[in-house]
Amino acid sequence: MVIVMAPEATQADIDGVVELVRSAGGEAFVSRGVSRTIIGLVGNVDNFGSLNLRSRNGVGDVVRISVPYKLVSREHHRERSVIRVAGVPIGPGTITLIAGPCSVETADQTLASARLAKKAGASLLRGGAFKPRTSPYAFQGLGLAGLKILGQVRAEVGLPVVTEVVDPADVDLVCEYADMLQVGTRNMQNFALLQAVGSAGKPVMLKRGMNATIEEWLMAAEYIAQRGNLDIVLCERGIRTFETATRNTLDISAVPIAQRLSHLPVIIDPSHSGGRRDLVLPLSRAAIAVGADGVIVDVHPQPAKALCDGDQALTGDDIAGLADVMATMPGLLGRTLAAAPEPASVSA
Amino acid sequence: MVIVMAPEATQADIDGVVELVRSAGGEAFVSRGVSRTIIGLVGNVDNFGSLNLRSRNGVGDVVRISVPYKLVSREHHRERSVIRVAGVPIGPGTITLIAGPCSVETADQTLASARLAKKAGASLLRGGAFKPRTSPYAFQGLGLAGLKILGQVRAEVGLPVVTEVVDPADVDLVCEYADMLQVGTRNMQNFALLQAVGSAGKPVMLKRGMNATIEEWLMAAEYIAQRGNLDIVLCERGIRTFETATRNTLDISAVPIAQRLSHLPVIIDPSHSGGRRDLVLPLSRAAIAVGADGVIVDVHPQPAKALCDGDQALTGDDIAGLADVMATMPGLLGRTLAAAPEPASVSA
Amino acid sequence: MVIVMAPEATQADIDGVVELVRSAGGEAFVSRGVSRTIIGLVGNVDNFGSLNLRSRNGVGDVVRISVPYKLVSREHHRERSVIRVAGVPIGPGTITLIAGPCSVETADQTLASARLAKKAGASLLRGGAFKPRTSPYAFQGLGLAGLKILGQVRAEVGLPVVTEVVDPADVDLVCEYADMLQVGTRNMQNFALLQAVGSAGKPVMLKRGMNATIEEWLMAAEYIAQRGNLDIVLCERGIRTFETATRNTLDISAVPIAQRLSHLPVIIDPSHSGGRRDLVLPLSRAAIAVGADGVIVDVHPQPAKALCDGDQALTGDDIAGLADVMATMPGLLGRTLAAAPEPASVSA
Amino acid sequence: MVIVMAPEATQADIDGVVELVRSAGGEAFVSRGVSRTIIGLVGNVDNFGSLNLRSRNGVGDVVRISVPYKLVSREHHRERSVIRVAGVPIGPGTITLIAGPCSVETADQTLASARLAKKAGASLLRGGAFKPRTSPYAFQGLGLAGLKILGQVRAEVGLPVVTEVVDPADVDLVCEYADMLQVGTRNMQNFALLQAVGSAGKPVMLKRGMNATIEEWLMAAEYIAQRGNLDIVLCERGIRTFETATRNTLDISAVPIAQRLSHLPVIIDPSHSGGRRDLVLPLSRAAIAVGADGVIVDVHPQPAKALCDGDQALTGDDIAGLADVMATMPGLLGRTLAAAPEPASVSA
Repeated sequence: MVIVMAPEATQADIDGVVELVRSAGGEAFVSRGVSRTIIGLVGNVDNFGSLNLRSRNGVGDVVRISVPYKLVSREHHRERSVIRVAGVPIGPGTITLIAGPCSVETADQTLASARLAKKAGASLLRGGAFKPRTSPYAFQGLGLAGLKILGQVRAEVGLPVVTEVVDPADVDLVCEYADMLQVGTRNMQNFALLQAVGSAGKPVMLKRGMNATIEEWLMAAEYIAQRGNLDIVLCERGIRTFETATRNTLDISAVPIAQRLSHLPVIIDPSHSGGRRDLVLPLSRAAIAVGADGVIVDVHPQPAKALCDGDQALTGDDIAGLADVMATMPGLLGRTLAAAPEPASVSA
Repeated sequence: MVIVMAPEATQADIDGVVELVRSAGGEAFVSRGVSRTIIGLVGNVDNFGSLNLRSRNGVGDVVRISVPYKLVSREHHRERSVIRVAGVPIGPGTITLIAGPCSVETADQTLASARLAKKAGASLLRGGAFKPRTSPYAFQGLGLAGLKILGQVRAEVGLPVVTEVVDPADVDLVCEYADMLQVGTRNMQNFALLQAVGSAGKPVMLKRGMNATIEEWLMAAEYIAQRGNLDIVLCERGIRTFETATRNTLDISAVPIAQRLSHLPVIIDPSHSGGRRDLVLPLSRAAIAVGADGVIVDVHPQPAKALCDGDQALTGDDIAGLADVMATMPGLLGRTLAAAPEPASVSA
Repeated sequence: MVIVMAPEATQADIDGVVELVRSAGGEAFVSRGVSRTIIGLVGNVDNFGSLNLRSRNGVGDVVRISVPYKLVSREHHRERSVIRVAGVPIGPGTITLIAGPCSVETADQTLASARLAKKAGASLLRGGAFKPRTSPYAFQGLGLAGLKILGQVRAEVGLPVVTEVVDPADVDLVCEYADMLQVGTRNMQNFALLQAVGSAGKPVMLKRGMNATIEEWLMAAEYIAQRGNLDIVLCERGIRTFETATRNTLDISAVPIAQRLSHLPVIIDPSHSGGRRDLVLPLSRAAIAVGADGVIVDVHPQPAKALCDGDQALTGDDIAGLADVMATMPGLLGRTLAAAPEPASVSA
Repeated sequence: MVIVMAPEATQADIDGVVELVRSAGGEAFVSRGVSRTIIGLVGNVDNFGSLNLRSRNGVGDVVRISVPYKLVSREHHRERSVIRVAGVPIGPGTITLIAGPCSVETADQTLASARLAKKAGASLLRGGAFKPRTSPYAFQGLGLAGLKILGQVRAEVGLPVVTEVVDPADVDLVCEYADMLQVGTRNMQNFALLQAVGSAGKPVMLKRGMNATIEEWLMAAEYIAQRGNLDIVLCERGIRTFETATRNTLDISAVPIAQRLSHLPVIIDPSHSGGRRDLVLPLSRAAIAVGADGVIVDVHPQPAKALCDGDQALTGDDIAGLADVMATMPGLLGRTLAAAPEPASVSA
């Protein structure tokens, strides 16, 4: 942490800051310039936060220089991590395709979606039983009935299940059916939920908040990690900007940056960022090309009848197109497509 | 809802849309232009949402023309509402000052803050016992102990209490101590929490999400209203933009707009939007001038020792400055400063 | 400037940075922490910019700590400036109302607008002869004919004229008719234009770019100042955000912040930020309350027939409303409404 | 265009709108719903713009349904265009690499950069002689001397030249040396400049404004096209968002969207969007994968000594990395790398 004193700061102001920092157990190095003095702080930054240094007489600015997350940081964990979801790897070396319907609507629709997902090359099945919706009048998901359908389809098709949880009170229930818990974009800073999934003993997919900086996203991951769960996969799904041609703006640069700052795998959701079917294949190709560790895509047997986000779900020819991307592109980056687990290992 | 057909749409495409709408119980009016055809839809818009009209052949665009919220809309409730918190009004006719510490830290600090609040003209006391913090290493609030302190201070000073709740599981507990529940900016789309406070039987202050449009904010209020609770106060607290000189950008225009769209009162939080003490008084004046129904402000007896957001808390001379604003400005807008309740009514 | 070395930086890396800085005529102070080393730089920051320090081995981050503008900064010019436009002051102590039509359309419309402006309390007349429009098919302004109309109306009504210039080649021509040159939001970083108005010998109103940070806005002012012209008034007119309920989001906090960083006056344009007539009066009140030095407003005798931005122009009863704001609010802030000049001084 | 009447609109309000539209030469179709009436407008939308319909009694909202650009639209020009710059194609079928230094500094530095560009696979040379810089104290480019250097290097290395023009008065001069004119991000809505390059008879690369919507970008292209110049290449270079980890946020989705809306080629600038060397290769791969028609990249023989944006310029091993991307990726999308012209054709 660096304190930049204001031009009009007095010697007493400088001494006051130095004493305050020392009283909090830190060290302070003073560098005097022609027009300004700067003070470098060394020690436990967490202790300095509550000193309210910005409010002190003579302080012009306070600049944090170290990252505020520790467990998920790459600083002390140089090697990038591989997370395993019921045996399926997500990490460097592989591209993992996760696919399935936005919402679980019926057993038939979920089963058909899972078969499309498998056809496209997916090794994990996505599908929502609890749906956070902007409108209280929109379909809110089937809840427990949806989880049961996911369990059946998982047994039948052999793809481990990724599904969202929205209430800390539901975490145990969802864990009975899910192989990986998803925390959605609107809940990225729902700290009670982050702590609950941090204690749940299942891998977690943490979607980036649509207004979260990369640093805040990593801090949210730190909440999960702090409860002892480091099996976290970060998912970039678009941020909110002024552009209205897409639902959100996919921040593709966030992938290499998050991979540099954190050892956790980073995947991309090209379906929700654009909200448009015609963008899913181009953005999936771009995701692999930029170095993402996987892609999560909406598929549906009859998008025109989907109860949620049908306008972005792939079907028919697009499934073949996605399969083609998955067959040809990972090799270009020196990766292989992650394979679905042996049926036995899932149904067990 | 209006459907704009693409220039290349065929007659069969148009007929298909018309049939689909009718099958969902709506009416469809076709207007043919030189280069495009538009179809006006009449009926229950909620039914049309799951038709995925955007995906149909020949559809160029789908434009929603009515507001998606009903209970909080001003369309069928022309008169602006007055919400009462333990008797203290918030609404047109008054300016209500809510003040207190960001966090409850100790009984002494809370009591001293409440006295500052009262001195400034406040009729309600704010103070957080459960604090959502970006970092898991930051002070997270005192929890139940903090609620108990708020209860004691409320009895002693005579100001009803506004405090935040972050987990649906805590709502009942918080209701035992609070006169008004606060839903914070990060939880504006925590739908489980919205539903829980909607059923709790206490007034709710709903802060705008820092990335939420005004429409999404009103939809979040609709979630609360739908559970039977219409005692909702909207609080604008700044949105996230590219500007870094302030923590967030106070969207002051949101006040008159939200008041036009909804009958609910709208207040402003000048402390959290700017994150800087020196902005609190100018923004408080601007809030009253633009027509806000109240202001919520951080105060603290010793900001330099505050455990949370000390850099923005008012103290000392600024309290007198705030009292002066509250004494002089409401009259200019034809309003009066809302008075604190009679001591008896609070301690009862 | 402070250089934060990466955790893995070597002693040679540190020495390299120190030498580089010294070779550019600066001093470098090294502070070693437990996990990181920081280097404080003292000297002429402009020289350090081309050292590309961020690219050096071992450098983690480079943090600038002094402001990059000098002439417009308040650091060495504590007193806030008063700018005079044909004798009309803009600065602390006064509130200056600038009003007039968005575009000059006809002599009659401009004259009628100027009379409305005067009735509302304006001491300066705005009106565009050169209009930057998003579409090449929209009305582009009358050009020279518009300037001549402004000159006639100025003589007749007695209000000095503020008008926009969009091409460096037109600056001399516009100066023949204008008392103050306006640089519009889309041209805030049109550096050729900034340099041209910096040499023109007339006061300049510099609108904030709709995507410009406050710092970039002040840097744009510095371009003008550097050519010898310090008669600059800053105008906040809304920034671009995700919110679509208003055309732009008025950043009202920018007023006190820019006034703290710079000695130049700061005014607000409530017409263009919101793009809606119903926001103009509330935002004008808020502008004065927050401490702005003036307000610039669109008025038009028949907004329904305006060739440009008619939806935001005030007319009829709203003019009386604006006059009322101008009569009652400045006193509250210890200011007076700036008066129009004596007719003789304008027509001379 | 569709007019949505307010719920309280009277029959007279509706009749008034219909008459107004007809008086402007348009047709109006009225569709009455249960709670609202909508009016579809047919005719020349440009005429309707100045009717200020939003201001009419009873009008709730006005929704535009056709695109406001014509010449650059794909609606009447289905086939995507190929633009040729001194014979080098940019368009579907090819990937065109444009590379060179951000600024022309010296003849040696420019020549060395051009050789690096060629080694990487470039067929066009970029390099700035006129540099728009945020600070008036930063290096502003060599001007005419820089253009002359570009001319010499072009003759020696055989790469046609792309260079920026910032002032309408300089267009003729720049045309003497350039094969393609660049309009930079800060000038995207400098309409005087757009008109000047529209009349200049050279291909134009139009960078997207960092705060421009895709629609505004296409409107800016329409300004150029309207002057008779349809040889326009669109360049996405990142937009401004709240994220601070990158200089701007590359909006990669803008490529397929702009290609769908317009017949013009679209390329990506991965150097300026991120502002970081380590992002250039991943984003270049992503650009090709998403379907861009080309990539424009900064290279420099000694980035640490560059006078402008040295932190993002490629050099050394990265050049080989870029060459590898250019050799392997275009084929994957069914494209070929555009070849540099035969030396004779350039030096002629």
